Amino acid sequence: GGGVVHTIQVEVFQAFSTYAAIVGVKILLMGPLTAYYRFTKGAFANPEDVALKPAEERKKLLVTHPDVERNDLETSVPFLVLGLLFALKEPSLAVALLHFRLFAGSRLVHTVSYVGALPQPCRALSWMVGMGVNFSMAYRLLSSGLML
Amino acid sequence: GGGVVHTIQVEVFQAFSTYAAIVGVKILLMGPLTAYYRFTKGAFANPEDVALKPAEERKKLLVTHPDVERNDLETSVPFLVLGLLFALKEPSLAVALLHFRLFAGSRLVHTVSYVGALPQPCRALSWMVGMGVNFSMAYRLLSSGLML
Amino acid sequence: GGGVVHTIQVEVFQAFSTYAAIVGVKILLMGPLTAYYRFTKGAFANPEDVALKPAEERKKLLVTHPDVERNDLETSVPFLVLGLLFALKEPSLAVALLHFRLFAGSRLVHTVSYVGALPQPCRALSWMVGMGVNFSMAYRLLSSGLML
Repeated sequence: GGGVVHTIQVEVFQAFSTYAAIVGVKILLMGPLTAYYRFTKGAFANPEDVALKPAEERKKLLVTHPDVERNDLETSVPFLVLGLLFALKEPSLAVALLHFRLFAGSRLVHTVSYVGALPQPCRALSWMVGMGVNFSMAYRLLSSGLML
Repeated sequence: GGGVVHTIQVEVFQAFSTYAAIVGVKILLMGPLTAYYRFTKGAFANPEDVALKPAEERKKLLVTHPDVERNDLETSVPFLVLGLLFALKEPSLAVALLHFRLFAGSRLVHTVSYVGALPQPCRALSWMVGMGVNFSMAYRLLSSGLML
Repeated sequence: GGGVVHTIQVEVFQAFSTYAAIVGVKILLMGPLTAYYRFTKGAFANPEDVALKPAEERKKLLVTHPDVERNDLETSVPFLVLGLLFALKEPSLAVALLHFRLFAGSRLVHTVSYVGALPQPCRALSWMVGMGVNFSMAYRLLSSGLML
């Protein structure tokens, strides 16, 4: 009865908390990762970071390196918001965990593909899995009742 | 009495879920839209995407095109967070829907203006409407009681 | 008993609402700040914004200025999501306020350092404080019970 439903909801919320913390930490680590690329590949975005370098080196360093610009906010922000609202719609724990695990796994593969510059299919496929999870959660939200 | 208040709260939350799903899907679609611009306008952000092209073409393609950089995370992230907290502050359904509809409409006009490169007033005005909605929700949150 | 616990939870949530509104407004203000830099420093990201300028000026204006690219979404998005989940884990009001105040203060110093181009230690230190708050909240979420 009600007790079982309540237990499942608590577990779904616990699952969302766990995966949201993992995805949040991953977003945070993109900053240091970018900084690492900036220093190893000599690409700086901010003039004051290179103010102490000789004049002829400065111009070269102020190039925005493609590696520096990489981020996954456009995929992770929708996951964090849609996932929270999805968790509040009382899905079964198995369905919720399937979504959260697929998303976290796909982003891990995506980041490894990015950093290691693996050949294109890996990054593109992991991006598609993450998109699929997000669209599935959005569909479940919208199909559970529209209020426009 | 209490029953009516509860019904309104459920409806406000349903309305937020609906519009958050729409805004979340819109953020997700910015990625493919960017990819579309990359291929049609020949701007690539990642070296491995152009690794198979001839050497003289590579350099040209590695330009970050302005179209590629366009995103609306800076407006949509505050909406998603402020909107959730605003929905929990028990606004009337009419007031909540007014905020959510104006925001979703303004972002739709903003994206269409961006993609179609309409003359400036359209994009600037739609951006201002979205900002106004966000500031109105922030004001309601802060005026309902500060805890600093 | 239960009443006191409930009062504390309401206050923690009120505190999160207050600081989330402040951080949300700060994200919103990054847009106009960027626009201000675009006009004062002559850096434009969108071709249609400079369509009325003479041809030889256009090319020069279409440079993406480093100032324009600065944003703090990568730090603020995790704060907003981790902070909400952290507030729901029933921390004491003192611990919650410590986290929220440190984060808001560190982002204020970070933005002032950015805009005023203060020497590097200020911006780097404020960034580290914000990261510390986020990691502390993520640790509390994960240590309160994993559901993987």
